[in-house]
Amino acid sequence: MGIFVFAITGALVGVRKDLDVFGILILAGTTGLGGGFLRDVLIGATPPAALEDWRYLLVPVAAGLLTFWFHPAVGRRERAVTVLDAFGLGLFCVTGTLKALEYGLGPVPAALMGMVTGIGGGMARDLLSARVPVVFRGDLYATPALAGAFVTVAGSRLDLPVLVVAVAGAGVCIVWRLVAMWRNWQAPVPAGSASV
Amino acid sequence: MGIFVFAITGALVGVRKDLDVFGILILAGTTGLGGGFLRDVLIGATPPAALEDWRYLLVPVAAGLLTFWFHPAVGRRERAVTVLDAFGLGLFCVTGTLKALEYGLGPVPAALMGMVTGIGGGMARDLLSARVPVVFRGDLYATPALAGAFVTVAGSRLDLPVLVVAVAGAGVCIVWRLVAMWRNWQAPVPAGSASV
Amino acid sequence: MGIFVFAITGALVGVRKDLDVFGILILAGTTGLGGGFLRDVLIGATPPAALEDWRYLLVPVAAGLLTFWFHPAVGRRERAVTVLDAFGLGLFCVTGTLKALEYGLGPVPAALMGMVTGIGGGMARDLLSARVPVVFRGDLYATPALAGAFVTVAGSRLDLPVLVVAVAGAGVCIVWRLVAMWRNWQAPVPAGSASV
Repeated sequence: MGIFVFAITGALVGVRKDLDVFGILILAGTTGLGGGFLRDVLIGATPPAALEDWRYLLVPVAAGLLTFWFHPAVGRRERAVTVLDAFGLGLFCVTGTLKALEYGLGPVPAALMGMVTGIGGGMARDLLSARVPVVFRGDLYATPALAGAFVTVAGSRLDLPVLVVAVAGAGVCIVWRLVAMWRNWQAPVPAGSASV
Repeated sequence: MGIFVFAITGALVGVRKDLDVFGILILAGTTGLGGGFLRDVLIGATPPAALEDWRYLLVPVAAGLLTFWFHPAVGRRERAVTVLDAFGLGLFCVTGTLKALEYGLGPVPAALMGMVTGIGGGMARDLLSARVPVVFRGDLYATPALAGAFVTVAGSRLDLPVLVVAVAGAGVCIVWRLVAMWRNWQAPVPAGSASV
Repeated sequence: MGIFVFAITGALVGVRKDLDVFGILILAGTTGLGGGFLRDVLIGATPPAALEDWRYLLVPVAAGLLTFWFHPAVGRRERAVTVLDAFGLGLFCVTGTLKALEYGLGPVPAALMGMVTGIGGGMARDLLSARVPVVFRGDLYATPALAGAFVTVAGSRLDLPVLVVAVAGAGVCIVWRLVAMWRNWQAPVPAGSASV
């Protein structure tokens, strides 16, 4: 589900950049799977899970084609997509952190890999669209993912059941992200940066 | 030969962006070897073949220097370069697919890796040149690579001799690409996308 | 120390692009650690060292926060940052080359990996900032790193003590880079490139 929602955000960017259907599918796939690929390559878990089970690969194709055909309808529901995207972010930061822990990484690197899993797909999407990653600006996005990842690490250390850990980690990430969107929280920028 | 042609397209972009000779060499190397590096990193075949045999590394250096010194002549022959590039694409999608199969990937992921081998170098070139990958727009480029990769997978499954598989896979890719160039086929774009 | 200086250059770019504090930290981390990550992924040394010892991860965070809070003072000292950056480049090209040799790469690929370790972080920084990598233009930057890497390879082949090899390799890189800055050496550009 996280892959699907992420892939839709990628496909929407592709539609807005006037890409053709294959460009849109590649952007959808990169956004949906990029974070997990980046994590797996960094922790040495190659080939990534999505390359071992081809059904994973169908998900972004479905999301990309859906957006290609119905992009006016999907675009009008962008607010809903952004909310679902927060759920995807929560899931990805938890699963990314757990996989990194499983591969023997320490708590801080594992949390970082959880964040990378969450934000990497969107960063790859923005790189391929030749724009500065939106995660770098304005809305809080990386911070909730990192917070959720640290909650996941803490829960794992305390040997809590996986389900409890996952719900707590994803919950912190999702709630933080949604509240940040709702209250329009902004991360601090450097003093006087607008004039630099 | 594929590396050489791809490297020339990279070097030409570098010349047009007014890069210096080292920038041109790095772009040539990235374009020629990037697709194979990306595939090898994803399937866990590290270090990539080009790092195990340094003679591979000389190919993009030669292509880059040739383009650096004779870029007006090379630039005038861009149509020929594009035709040779189709042959490079055909070779890469076949070798990439075969290597991924050899590393135990299933048919769909192996075909995807074949496509990545073919288009990855050009995408890396465009990323480093800060432009949206040209593979995302207009001309058909990724599709012939994917088609050739699937032919290769099918041929391997049928236990045909490697030479037959390679000729069939590369042939489908090259013919499709050349016909698409000749007839100026365009991939479909989203309805109303020009006005989005 | 190399990580720290590189991270400062990344954070300065982030400040100038009006990124928020998290964007600045991510750019700082990417610039400081990106070259080593890229090398480790290519030679198959995963997970990279910086993910095995979390104290490495604190260095770019410190550099990023320092730049975030005191960017006017850091910005005024940019000349000093550039000189320190040359020292970072020298260290990275030596350590990168030695690590690649240790992982069994031949002399030419090992030297290339040394160069990649030195310039990869800056290239990743520029990619994430959506600009053509500065290493491709004007100042000599990649060449000193490659020269230092080849000196390191030669020294290792001669079985000289590691300290001697490191000082010689880093020295060649640093002196070349500083002299190039001081005399404003430029790499050759293609004939007539301004009008291409």
